[in-house]
Amino acid sequence: MSGKLYIIGLGPGAAEMQTPQAAAALAEATDLLGYGPYVGRVPERPGQVRHITDNREELFRARHALELAADGRIVAVVSAGDAGVFGMASAVFEAVHKGDPAWRQLDIEVIPGISAMFAAAARIGAMLGHDFCAISLSDNLKPWELVLERLAAAAKAGFVMALYNPLSRARPWQLGAAFDCLRRHLAPTTPIVFATAISRPDEQVEIFDLRDADPLRADMRTLVMIGTDATRRIERPGNTPWLYTPRSVETIT
Amino acid sequence: MSGKLYIIGLGPGAAEMQTPQAAAALAEATDLLGYGPYVGRVPERPGQVRHITDNREELFRARHALELAADGRIVAVVSAGDAGVFGMASAVFEAVHKGDPAWRQLDIEVIPGISAMFAAAARIGAMLGHDFCAISLSDNLKPWELVLERLAAAAKAGFVMALYNPLSRARPWQLGAAFDCLRRHLAPTTPIVFATAISRPDEQVEIFDLRDADPLRADMRTLVMIGTDATRRIERPGNTPWLYTPRSVETIT
Repeated sequence: MSGKLYIIGLGPGAAEMQTPQAAAALAEATDLLGYGPYVGRVPERPGQVRHITDNREELFRARHALELAADGRIVAVVSAGDAGVFGMASAVFEAVHKGDPAWRQLDIEVIPGISAMFAAAARIGAMLGHDFCAISLSDNLKPWELVLERLAAAAKAGFVMALYNPLSRARPWQLGAAFDCLRRHLAPTTPIVFATAISRPDEQVEIFDLRDADPLRADMRTLVMIGTDATRRIERPGNTPWLYTPRSVETIT
Repeated sequence: MSGKLYIIGLGPGAAEMQTPQAAAALAEATDLLGYGPYVGRVPERPGQVRHITDNREELFRARHALELAADGRIVAVVSAGDAGVFGMASAVFEAVHKGDPAWRQLDIEVIPGISAMFAAAARIGAMLGHDFCAISLSDNLKPWELVLERLAAAAKAGFVMALYNPLSRARPWQLGAAFDCLRRHLAPTTPIVFATAISRPDEQVEIFDLRDADPLRADMRTLVMIGTDATRRIERPGNTPWLYTPRSVETIT
């Protein structure tokens, strides 16, 4: 077992946001595994084998990657953003945990990437400027009640939120239900950002108040960010406003 | 006002984890501003002016950067990790908000970086594999009671936690008090990771159970991660175990 398994975060899309560490691992790999659109971002190389699987087949893909590495291949499993944030890293280690004990001796290296929430926050100012959390709205892997509990807990505790997997064809109502939940805990004017395809040619950033936010503005490529009552808006005539959350919490006296 | 202001996340330390976008902006800058150890990571360039300030002078540094950009300079303000995560981005936008209205017309670009928590999670497996939060333990900028409230809320809601600014000479007791708070809400065997100087020559990663975690193992360069009852440990004879938090939440039936 002299193979290697890289689990790589490709970043949000633009090549200039992919780390040299990720690029070097991609160049070294004999086998590339991932969801089609993410594998499609990696330049093709002669001799490198591409194994494309559907978005819902993470554990199958993880086991396949481990088998290839155990066979001595140099394997790269790719995710968008950071592979440790709702990406392939957790799936691979779950497959190791439940799989062949020999896999625990494999050389596995996780290569972090720029996550969608950092790229989105950067575009709009400094939305994540104080304590924040990341929540996946997908209820494929956890009960919806738990999603609602976490949204309510984060809102009451004053965390800025980054909502991953807000919406898909198979999950059309979750983001609207999340907004309904948040409206019970946050002011109607709380800023909401829809950040879609950040750093890619079809990038779009939109800002709404919580009371007006229309969930159907989001799609699978959207990260939704929810401010707190501390998040501030800097108006700029003729330009998109900047949003930032101050580092200081002012004590009300 | 034809200047430019870049707010740059340098990543955790290793050059291979710094994005090409950050490197290009650093190469373009006429003026570099930041805390000494972070500015010190940037290779010196003839003609580029370095303005080094102390760690506690963020707003002063932010105003200085804005004044230089307003004077037509190409300014780079640097943070470790991601500048939007407890870094300089929030301080700069706060300075814009409270400062000269003309600053709102400046060309300001935030360049995201690999945050300490992503680099640390990658080293240990996939600790942040499901919903997670980031909390700064510094009570310089917010009341300590609010820190405790957020720790308790995050523990009860099942978020993995990344604790920034756990300890410094001026704040020696906060991490111990945070562990005491967490012990009231989390199992004694909850895994705790101390990740220090990740990707730098003196990198160190240590894993403890919550019941045994000694706050004095941390210093200013340490990121502390707190698992949940879902976080799993993969034992590897002769090697550091891997930790991962599964994407799925198993419903107890």
